[in-house]
Amino acid sequence: MIALYELKGRGDRRYSLFSWRTRMALAHKGLDFESIPVRLSDKAVLEFSGGKTVPVIKDKETVVRDSWKIAEYLENRYKDAPPLFGGEIGRGVSQAFNTWVDRAVVPAMLAVIAADIHERVHRKDEEYFRQTMEKVLKMTLEESRARRDEALLRLGRVLQPLQDAFKRQAFMGGAKAAYADYILFSVFQWARVMSPQELLGPEDPLCRWREQMLDLFDGFARNVPTA
Amino acid sequence: MIALYELKGRGDRRYSLFSWRTRMALAHKGLDFESIPVRLSDKAVLEFSGGKTVPVIKDKETVVRDSWKIAEYLENRYKDAPPLFGGEIGRGVSQAFNTWVDRAVVPAMLAVIAADIHERVHRKDEEYFRQTMEKVLKMTLEESRARRDEALLRLGRVLQPLQDAFKRQAFMGGAKAAYADYILFSVFQWARVMSPQELLGPEDPLCRWREQMLDLFDGFARNVPTA
Repeated sequence: MIALYELKGRGDRRYSLFSWRTRMALAHKGLDFESIPVRLSDKAVLEFSGGKTVPVIKDKETVVRDSWKIAEYLENRYKDAPPLFGGEIGRGVSQAFNTWVDRAVVPAMLAVIAADIHERVHRKDEEYFRQTMEKVLKMTLEESRARRDEALLRLGRVLQPLQDAFKRQAFMGGAKAAYADYILFSVFQWARVMSPQELLGPEDPLCRWREQMLDLFDGFARNVPTA
Repeated sequence: MIALYELKGRGDRRYSLFSWRTRMALAHKGLDFESIPVRLSDKAVLEFSGGKTVPVIKDKETVVRDSWKIAEYLENRYKDAPPLFGGEIGRGVSQAFNTWVDRAVVPAMLAVIAADIHERVHRKDEEYFRQTMEKVLKMTLEESRARRDEALLRLGRVLQPLQDAFKRQAFMGGAKAAYADYILFSVFQWARVMSPQELLGPEDPLCRWREQMLDLFDGFARNVPTA
């Protein structure tokens, strides 16, 4: 069975957004995995991978680190299982989308939920999370919470083109979910696991899409500990 | 031969950005075409298509309007020619990218070059262009020119994730150009044909990518009348 190293929060939450990309990719390929919890401030356990970040997978003797590299590995290694990219063009456009989500959507979401995340990381990680995050945000967590409405508006502006896209198509991958869907979904699942805020109105095309993502693989992403 | 209906500006410029998507798709598929010029304020010639917008193609008895629908048509009709999407996932992610470019990149570029375009449309289209554009921009063309630096900064912010993407990959389509590249390239070609401004520094990964796009198909997009 594949081992997946991923962050553990309070109440057994799995909250690494990048690990959610890998979780969904593993479910898409129909692969069982064992979750190995890692604490944010105690990553010695990851040394064997040559890095300090999750996700890492160990598939028999093969170790792969970085969610994008893991997706490429799974696509090449498990060719007969349903495709994540479906060929070189799908892989290329998905990789560009991955970069866009990481640079534009992730920071916009982080500004909305950072203070909520802080309240749900492992207690031993609280201080480490605060220090790291306040440098990234260039403000205290309390200030970021006070400026949440502004951050929510900015997130809405970044996501608006995707709302329009989901009026035209069911999934990023077209008729069915593909890895590009998991890239975007990971950001919403991160928020869902770590923040009690509802970010999408029921009429938002992104909300309908997210509900469909939560239904995939027998509610694989729905039935987990959340905020 | 396929007939392509597209906008004609001064000095025989072809400046419809959406038509450039179709031009590149036709070249990618190795299909010859005849360009049929249309003036912005005189679209009676398009009535046969059931709409009032370019591009329209006529391939023997088949008429297709809208650049996205044309791309899908070409991909299905000319399956043995090089792929534009390479399958359903590539098609889906490219369609979402198409929506994002139209909603985020096109308006940001328009704010930078609108006044330049006005000076290069067909003389008989000048007044029509001004009236239409000033409604879209919610300011006069002269005001938009005066606020160009601000618009250029906004364009840079929208494009930044793509700069990062092109550090990791040669083309949107991965190792080779695909339709997603033509979607984005059309916006730069629109600017190149209608504006004397240089928008990208020589060190910008987008600049290197654009030069490669201009080299494709024996300089197909390079060797045209420009600003």
